[in-house]
Amino acid sequence: MQMPFQLTILGSSSAMPTSKRYPTAQVLNVLGRFFLIDCGEGTQHQIRKNKIGFGRLDHIFISHLHGDHFFGLIGFISTQVLLGRTKDLHIFAHSELQRYTQFQIDFLAMGELGFRLVFHPLNFKKPQLILDDAKLSVTSFPLKHRIPCCGFLFQEKEKEPNIKKEQLKSYQIPIREIKNIKAGADFTTKDGVVIPNKDLVVPASKPRSFAFCSDTTYHEKIIPIIRDVDLLYHEATFAESEKAMAKTTFHATGKEAAITAKKAGAGKLLIGHFSARYKQPDTILEEAQRVFPNTIAVSEGETYSVNRNQ
Amino acid sequence: MQMPFQLTILGSSSAMPTSKRYPTAQVLNVLGRFFLIDCGEGTQHQIRKNKIGFGRLDHIFISHLHGDHFFGLIGFISTQVLLGRTKDLHIFAHSELQRYTQFQIDFLAMGELGFRLVFHPLNFKKPQLILDDAKLSVTSFPLKHRIPCCGFLFQEKEKEPNIKKEQLKSYQIPIREIKNIKAGADFTTKDGVVIPNKDLVVPASKPRSFAFCSDTTYHEKIIPIIRDVDLLYHEATFAESEKAMAKTTFHATGKEAAITAKKAGAGKLLIGHFSARYKQPDTILEEAQRVFPNTIAVSEGETYSVNRNQ
Repeated sequence: MQMPFQLTILGSSSAMPTSKRYPTAQVLNVLGRFFLIDCGEGTQHQIRKNKIGFGRLDHIFISHLHGDHFFGLIGFISTQVLLGRTKDLHIFAHSELQRYTQFQIDFLAMGELGFRLVFHPLNFKKPQLILDDAKLSVTSFPLKHRIPCCGFLFQEKEKEPNIKKEQLKSYQIPIREIKNIKAGADFTTKDGVVIPNKDLVVPASKPRSFAFCSDTTYHEKIIPIIRDVDLLYHEATFAESEKAMAKTTFHATGKEAAITAKKAGAGKLLIGHFSARYKQPDTILEEAQRVFPNTIAVSEGETYSVNRNQ
Repeated sequence: MQMPFQLTILGSSSAMPTSKRYPTAQVLNVLGRFFLIDCGEGTQHQIRKNKIGFGRLDHIFISHLHGDHFFGLIGFISTQVLLGRTKDLHIFAHSELQRYTQFQIDFLAMGELGFRLVFHPLNFKKPQLILDDAKLSVTSFPLKHRIPCCGFLFQEKEKEPNIKKEQLKSYQIPIREIKNIKAGADFTTKDGVVIPNKDLVVPASKPRSFAFCSDTTYHEKIIPIIRDVDLLYHEATFAESEKAMAKTTFHATGKEAAITAKKAGAGKLLIGHFSARYKQPDTILEEAQRVFPNTIAVSEGETYSVNRNQ
């Protein structure tokens, strides 16, 4: 069974929330670790509603400093204080968000929070590796919006192959050899017989990837960065009929999101951040699907798996 | 038919919202004018969901500066900007809220809002008339909480009686006499017959009143201020089993809310602001009803009419 790599949509409206859609927020579960991406007003409510444990969220990524992407942060932090959080909370955002948040904390006379807020300033000039461990890397990359704005690329690391347990036994492979075999070595038995590596291991599943392109106009520079991504979430605020409005406000149409997905060779495209003028995003979705059939208009509370792009 | 005087609950959780309850917010409709009382995170979402026109809300009352009572304000203001509001927006709150809000507006580089934000600082030392016109008065009054906190009393004005139309005709009453008759005068016909006032008018319905007691410990000083109120909303964060906790945190139990209602001679009691520890506020409600039977535990999205306390 594959380890989870999936995205749960908490909010998918654009700047003006509707009765049915909250402002932008989503939770990405990568191998059991949970990452909050954007944190519009009401995010903590949606987290509870979707039964995601607050205690599992240690990293928050804020794409840019328009209110619909971060007004929920102070409520989230306040609730962490009430819950008695002690673990560090990492926030990847524009450096100015630290000043804003500190002002709020001081104003509210919260005193010592009981946990560390660790701010990681984003780079809005070029792609940057912002998180990297044995299993996962996260890269931020600049988008093109009215104010500095970043997308985020989450990539699983290449995994070692799994040793076939029955072979361990039948060839009496010593434990010290396992590391070499996982790294690709053959094994020579006591009798001098060489067992080729391919008979000893099962290849691991291919690493998967997810990219979130928050508010942005159509922007070809992101294509090489998100090349071959398995799941792409790209904003699609407008239909083609409002293309001029999209340009003026530095947003994308569904069709433009689809062109980006197609040129990048994405496996699947999610679109969201719909303008409140559309009761249903049907037209935006149809225009996107004409260019990139494997497109879904996100619904709040839905979870989308990141599957390997074949 | 009576003109509307009714309260719609938008949020009724305490500091920590739950999956089912938003932080404090409610809309009071007095004779077709809408007043927003407290503005926790998610209020604008709840306003839309309950189909209350943003354009009808010109007055916001913020009881105190704990986040669960005002974190939704900046989102509300941002949405007013997006909607192209031009009318003044009046905010009755602690004077410090202006500094906080201005910091946010400056940070967001909103520029000119297109409308005036008019801040009215509350008095936390004594009751104060904060809004007064021909039909309505609003009085703030100090509660007893960890930080300065006010309740609000909304009172309809005494209305003039209505002239019986058929008498206007049969006694040939000149228009210039109507004002005097409404003020209580008898009428003398051309033939010198005195028609007593009571035969000429139908008394207006009695003025109604609503009081909101936001976060507060049990506080007898408020009783004379809210005496005979028709509808009282009093916080009831805890059950009696958590009475010690209620004291420490300057909150009330359901029973204490009910004692206040009983001593004040209220017509009906609404309780809310329930601690997240209670899945259902059944115990709090039962304890309140034992003291004051006409008690209701509020539900979000419900509207409660303010009816004259007989």
